[in-house]
Amino acid sequence: MAFQYLTNIPLKKAQEDYLLFLKEHGLEPKTESIPVVSALNRITCAPVYAHISAPHYPASAMDGIAVWAADTYGATETTPVILDPDQYVVVDTGDPVPDGCDAVIMVEELVNEENNRIRIHQSAAPWQHIRQIGEDICAGEMILPANTKISPAAIGSMLAGGVMEVSVHCRPVVGIIPTGDEIIDPIADPKPGDILEFNSPVFSAMLTDWGAFPVRYPIVPDKRDEILDTLKKAVSECDCVLLNAGSSAGREDYSVSVIRELGEVLYHGIAIKPGKPAILGCCEGTPVIGVPGYPVSGIIVLEQLLRPVIEHLCGLSLDNSQVVRATLTKRIVSGLKYQEFVRVRMGYVGDKLIATPLPRGAGIISSFMKADGLVAVPLNSEGLDAGMTVPVHLMRPLKELRHTLVAIGSHDPLLDELANMLHQADPNLYMSSNHVGSMGGIMAIKRKEAHIGGCHLLDESDGSYNYVFIRKHFPQGGVHLIECVGRQQGLMVAKGNPLGFTGFSDITKEGVRFVNRQKGSGTRILNDYLCKQNGIDPDSIYGYEREEFTHTSVAIQIASGTADCGMGIYSAAQLYDLDFIPVCIEQYDLIISDDAWETPMVKQLLKILQSEKFRTRAEEMGGYTLEHPGKERLF
Amino acid sequence: MAFQYLTNIPLKKAQEDYLLFLKEHGLEPKTESIPVVSALNRITCAPVYAHISAPHYPASAMDGIAVWAADTYGATETTPVILDPDQYVVVDTGDPVPDGCDAVIMVEELVNEENNRIRIHQSAAPWQHIRQIGEDICAGEMILPANTKISPAAIGSMLAGGVMEVSVHCRPVVGIIPTGDEIIDPIADPKPGDILEFNSPVFSAMLTDWGAFPVRYPIVPDKRDEILDTLKKAVSECDCVLLNAGSSAGREDYSVSVIRELGEVLYHGIAIKPGKPAILGCCEGTPVIGVPGYPVSGIIVLEQLLRPVIEHLCGLSLDNSQVVRATLTKRIVSGLKYQEFVRVRMGYVGDKLIATPLPRGAGIISSFMKADGLVAVPLNSEGLDAGMTVPVHLMRPLKELRHTLVAIGSHDPLLDELANMLHQADPNLYMSSNHVGSMGGIMAIKRKEAHIGGCHLLDESDGSYNYVFIRKHFPQGGVHLIECVGRQQGLMVAKGNPLGFTGFSDITKEGVRFVNRQKGSGTRILNDYLCKQNGIDPDSIYGYEREEFTHTSVAIQIASGTADCGMGIYSAAQLYDLDFIPVCIEQYDLIISDDAWETPMVKQLLKILQSEKFRTRAEEMGGYTLEHPGKERLF
Repeated sequence: MAFQYLTNIPLKKAQEDYLLFLKEHGLEPKTESIPVVSALNRITCAPVYAHISAPHYPASAMDGIAVWAADTYGATETTPVILDPDQYVVVDTGDPVPDGCDAVIMVEELVNEENNRIRIHQSAAPWQHIRQIGEDICAGEMILPANTKISPAAIGSMLAGGVMEVSVHCRPVVGIIPTGDEIIDPIADPKPGDILEFNSPVFSAMLTDWGAFPVRYPIVPDKRDEILDTLKKAVSECDCVLLNAGSSAGREDYSVSVIRELGEVLYHGIAIKPGKPAILGCCEGTPVIGVPGYPVSGIIVLEQLLRPVIEHLCGLSLDNSQVVRATLTKRIVSGLKYQEFVRVRMGYVGDKLIATPLPRGAGIISSFMKADGLVAVPLNSEGLDAGMTVPVHLMRPLKELRHTLVAIGSHDPLLDELANMLHQADPNLYMSSNHVGSMGGIMAIKRKEAHIGGCHLLDESDGSYNYVFIRKHFPQGGVHLIECVGRQQGLMVAKGNPLGFTGFSDITKEGVRFVNRQKGSGTRILNDYLCKQNGIDPDSIYGYEREEFTHTSVAIQIASGTADCGMGIYSAAQLYDLDFIPVCIEQYDLIISDDAWETPMVKQLLKILQSEKFRTRAEEMGGYTLEHPGKERLF
Repeated sequence: MAFQYLTNIPLKKAQEDYLLFLKEHGLEPKTESIPVVSALNRITCAPVYAHISAPHYPASAMDGIAVWAADTYGATETTPVILDPDQYVVVDTGDPVPDGCDAVIMVEELVNEENNRIRIHQSAAPWQHIRQIGEDICAGEMILPANTKISPAAIGSMLAGGVMEVSVHCRPVVGIIPTGDEIIDPIADPKPGDILEFNSPVFSAMLTDWGAFPVRYPIVPDKRDEILDTLKKAVSECDCVLLNAGSSAGREDYSVSVIRELGEVLYHGIAIKPGKPAILGCCEGTPVIGVPGYPVSGIIVLEQLLRPVIEHLCGLSLDNSQVVRATLTKRIVSGLKYQEFVRVRMGYVGDKLIATPLPRGAGIISSFMKADGLVAVPLNSEGLDAGMTVPVHLMRPLKELRHTLVAIGSHDPLLDELANMLHQADPNLYMSSNHVGSMGGIMAIKRKEAHIGGCHLLDESDGSYNYVFIRKHFPQGGVHLIECVGRQQGLMVAKGNPLGFTGFSDITKEGVRFVNRQKGSGTRILNDYLCKQNGIDPDSIYGYEREEFTHTSVAIQIASGTADCGMGIYSAAQLYDLDFIPVCIEQYDLIISDDAWETPMVKQLLKILQSEKFRTRAEEMGGYTLEHPGKERLF
């Protein structure tokens, strides 16, 4: 059962060798001639020269009259010149300047006299208000060089230059073959074990964005013959083929073997993470890439290994992502043996651009959706330390990051609702949330890595929330404390309460599987406090060390039966139709840094907190009590 | 005939008032529900929540065996644990973890024993190598907020979350009505007076880039009734209508009048240049914008006045252009009464980002094609001085500008060929040229506003080229002089030489119309020198003050019959099929700044100059002699 990848090739070498290998196997860009009017964003494959000049005749640039300039000489405010009808021709903008005329006088400067004569008070200079031939484009001049993306203005320039057809690179046709017995086309209600095949739609969208043309083949089961047949067909129909999944070392991974049968494999195994099991092959002159099954691995393999091939076929560099330097808020531990790509959330706190690593699991497609940038941890590096300034490939415009409110702290689904309302109220404002618990939020604000944080920290001595902690951690001030909501906390248990829970202390009962929250979260502090109050030894609770990061992910483990109970807020229980045994009402507030206080994001956020819309939404979700949301609390 | 615009509204006020006016008239975004798989780059109109969790079952994250963790406790390198066949289930990545199992052990860590038993040397922690339900996405969680552009990863996240359909803003349908008796659909061989209607394709392309859906109506002649009928039809069929041309004050400008008849005009005349005559109207709840006829005016009006309307209909800010600060290389004179938009070419010279204004004529569509950025000269400003640092809206990625070789100097069509070959050799490298003559180039390099410049300056004392001027202007060095080509200069005259020119001195003949080059150009210096040598008084030459900026634009005036002769290089004469009377061979060299010497652009350029490909192309074009192009000359 043991397996070793054949190779562990550094990425840059793999990219270079693969292109060379493909060129040796005859890979060349294809070209076609298309109408200029349909050429938006296509890429020229040869320089484009103007056939005619623009304008193609001497044209009046104004509404007025065309004259022979010499006829007007001497005209001044005090010594007007009178032009006879045979000394001028009325012209509109764009009209040809008649033979014998070499200047145009604007309509605004003309005074009508009797018998169609015209008086002027200023002489005309030769060629004034005339668009000379070629003013815009000269016939024979190069309008566009080769390998240039055709912009709207380039379409206009070519048409103005008499160019009706343009030679461009063909859009590469990329076949996608999904394989696997367990994968199915996405549906809304899959069974356990069904794997939704959403890689093809993601890859297709990426290819479309790159200007390529994706062709998706039907799902092929894990049968070697069928995979071989489909690959044969795709290789004959496409400029490039992606064989998805089956590139690893599982029991039914046929990719390497079928690519070898139809052609050659250059490398199997690239020194990247995620994406290591990628296969770089070529069948009958067509590039064939074996793409790992996890979506994040797949995206990285497409970005790093397919894109250079598409760029070669398109004649253009497709990566215009800006590289900026940002400060890491968390350590990234990485292996020496691969280059690791880590997705990060970003924002400006004060003047500092910060980057917070997102979950790194290869199966977490949402991490790519949420990502503002990508950090590459180099080969032979054990990782990057928190506080380091590192290069980040931006995935969103810097402009948006400047208007992004960075929330780090305790999780509540209301934060997503606030983010939505903020962006709806002003499409230029954004909010990103990262859930690390209340204490994590306080620390992030202290370290100037977040603008705001949700917080519900109980002071055991007097039962108050948040004040004590803020006074302790911000003795000099520097933050505002904003009232948000009261939240019903309680024990979430399965629908119908089959194990008959009555209160918190039942979590120690024989056979009960608990699911906890991570250390530093307000809910964990509550759990620890309740244990103490009830004289429970945490070690006696099965699952007390099983940590989830949000209320919803605790609820979901109970709903799916992998745990029997856990502490969480009412709205999470309601979302998963769980029974709920109320334990206490806690105060959930927002800490806002002075640095962010005057930003448009915070101003808008306070307005939203005070709005009827927010109140209504919170009441819909349930389990919240609203006194004066948005009101500043003194501490 | 006199005419006054009704209004001269500052742009910001016009933008704000127009949106308000349209909302009061009932303009609202439309929405539709579409399949997620077709939703790339569409914009959500409501938050999207997950229907199911991803994964939706506890899934094995590895190929291996699923076990009950407690069965493995105590296993170490020296005290292995043997698992019986009923204590494990073989699983592949993605398989559901069977009931009764709570951990997965990787295939690499298993040792097969007899009777299907398996030996392990390390205990498994509960939940290891298991993707818990909701690891990626939790059911009920907000996947995307409203007004968010759907990325490839967002498509994957929605499908993973069981979302098959998504509510998005409809793509606004924008009707374009071209009007005018003289305009025709673009053809390759128009007659004088034909105006090619290339505005619609340009506007359509811009709208497509914005995610709108353009609908182009057939050209309507300048007949009020027909314009009215077409506008009626368009208003009923579209979300927004552009009435192109006819927004000014010419004899046949009906736009204001027909918009008034069908609805209301808010403003006619906005304080912008170009684009002043724009009309902002609304007919039956549909925005109708009167767009001036010149293409550059039209583009500015679409960008500044239509785009906010499209943004309102799309629910998204469409302008992600980065604003950078750059140093102006030339003064921009502007009027107090309008905000002027000036297109600029940009580049990095040393560490300085420089911006050089492009020709500002409203008819010069190529200026938008060539533009790297847009500078706005504010209302109430007389202009911006050379050397000022001004904000520029980027139209190209900064990354490209960092790899752009900035050429300012003498014009030769070979520069375009070099730019093309440079970009073809390495798609990451670019070259932009600005033609200001040899002396202008020297000055630009001195002021650190250009990397290289073409130069052919004759020293009258010894007939040598360039050396003397470089020694004079760069006494401390700081530049390299690179041999390029010898060029045949001569008198260009009409095909067949109808006026019987025999040499330069014939330009003084009775009735001969000369066309000159601008002061500071090498060819102008040559003309002045030849006058002196031949004892000709320039004032005696008709047209000596008529200046063009390139060889081709001189040639074109002769080809089109607006001039009889002019001095230029052989390749320009050949391009327009002119007769050519050789006068001299001059040396055309490249001056390269030390600052640019080590850049990849210059390294590549030198390779190209020395290549066979360059030699072949120059010989094809004709009139060039090549000795050692690319060789450094000592001065």
